Amino acid sequence: MNFKEKVIQAIKIKNSALCVGLDTEIAKLPDILKNEKDPVLKFNKEIIGATKEFTAAYKPNLAFYEQFGTKGFDYLETTLGYIDSGILKIADAKRGDIGNTSKKYASAFFDYFDCDAVTVSPYMGEDSITPFLGREDKGVFVLGLTSNKGSFDFQMQKMADGRCFYEFVIEKINSWNTKKNCGIVVGATHPEMFENIRKLAPDLPYLIPGIGAQGGDLENTVKYGFVKGDVLSFINSSRGIIYASSGPDFAEKAAEEAKKLRDSINSFMQ
Amino acid sequence: MNFKEKVIQAIKIKNSALCVGLDTEIAKLPDILKNEKDPVLKFNKEIIGATKEFTAAYKPNLAFYEQFGTKGFDYLETTLGYIDSGILKIADAKRGDIGNTSKKYASAFFDYFDCDAVTVSPYMGEDSITPFLGREDKGVFVLGLTSNKGSFDFQMQKMADGRCFYEFVIEKINSWNTKKNCGIVVGATHPEMFENIRKLAPDLPYLIPGIGAQGGDLENTVKYGFVKGDVLSFINSSRGIIYASSGPDFAEKAAEEAKKLRDSINSFMQ
Repeated sequence: MNFKEKVIQAIKIKNSALCVGLDTEIAKLPDILKNEKDPVLKFNKEIIGATKEFTAAYKPNLAFYEQFGTKGFDYLETTLGYIDSGILKIADAKRGDIGNTSKKYASAFFDYFDCDAVTVSPYMGEDSITPFLGREDKGVFVLGLTSNKGSFDFQMQKMADGRCFYEFVIEKINSWNTKKNCGIVVGATHPEMFENIRKLAPDLPYLIPGIGAQGGDLENTVKYGFVKGDVLSFINSSRGIIYASSGPDFAEKAAEEAKKLRDSINSFMQ
Repeated sequence: MNFKEKVIQAIKIKNSALCVGLDTEIAKLPDILKNEKDPVLKFNKEIIGATKEFTAAYKPNLAFYEQFGTKGFDYLETTLGYIDSGILKIADAKRGDIGNTSKKYASAFFDYFDCDAVTVSPYMGEDSITPFLGREDKGVFVLGLTSNKGSFDFQMQKMADGRCFYEFVIEKINSWNTKKNCGIVVGATHPEMFENIRKLAPDLPYLIPGIGAQGGDLENTVKYGFVKGDVLSFINSSRGIIYASSGPDFAEKAAEEAKKLRDSINSFMQ
């Protein structure tokens, strides 16, 4: 099964296009966990257990694990083990380097951590991305148009042919998709660009951050970011779900928020 | 001392602008180390011990450690401990994400691993870079014009104002250098662009890969990439030095290559 088919299947099984971001940080953990031996692991386990019914993918954000150094990679490995098979594991790593180096990153995320997909940055061009695209069942989400303010600094700049730089990048990414395992990251904070982006990459899976804490527009994101028929985009929410409550009911509230967002996405798909 | 001053001092003390890249991989280790308990660590320790006389900075490439997962981060931490103080430690990580995430990456590399600098990718713009620029003694090398073939895919594309995209990026990076801790990565495979790049960023430290295995032009790189008077650029070589020999003399040969490259750089600075 190629990565695109894995995305469609994961979304179909759960009737959910929701991806939950695991941006776990000590300062935001519920007080009730603070005396646990490994509060990060306990939190992730509880969050995953409570939200998995509504979730087609989990997206651990590497920075939040690397901050703990060696122990952080251990947390990541253990956390990935909490995720049921069939739910996709997306390493949000924003990697990308010369070919021989990208090959090692691909090995880290696809072999060692056995993730289904990884996020990568396109700045270094095709030979920095192709080492991630060698296996049809392992996917890559390349940064296209990101959700942050800084997306205006470079991605929105005008090229000589009148297009924005991000359009040029997305068109290129689309051309690298020979194994049906390539996707793009597009931020929900730019819903006015979604219709155009879907034309540039008609059948690529999208990973869409920016809903929730970053304030993206859900209705237009679903309307223009999703392909009708085969649903193949993920809408990610991290902080809005995993930190829904800092009380003893944190897992229950996370599940409520996950269900609510899943249902909202589905309602806009009608 | 700000990062720029640290770079100048490190180069002055060793009379060397050489940075040695620690891209350690099992398949390339000398046979003599294969029965060691931790061949990666033994190799790195020997290489660092043999080359430190000629070296102003070491640059571990994160991918080569991450491929081993948790153990790899342990290798990285231990390896960094082999490096004498005064020699700079540059984490070649190519990170970059939204603000709250870049902040965690900065914490990983500057607090946990106590590196002096980290490489980052500019695609997500200013708010993805500024979290790395908060401390004047910790530096950032932002990708400007990279050494690989893929640098032509995006970095060399023409903008509406006639400039190449990399020129626009480097000018922006230069404007973020308010704490004198910002630098750029420029590949030695583009020596014809170096004169122009130095105009765009007159007093930024450069980290220059692409010499050695990638075939960059050393003489023109030094001629146009270095600032006269205050030497503040590093020329990196990884494979060309650390894999100079796969025999029992691997450390000795690495030292010879390091000395040779250091001397060549110095000779072109005359």
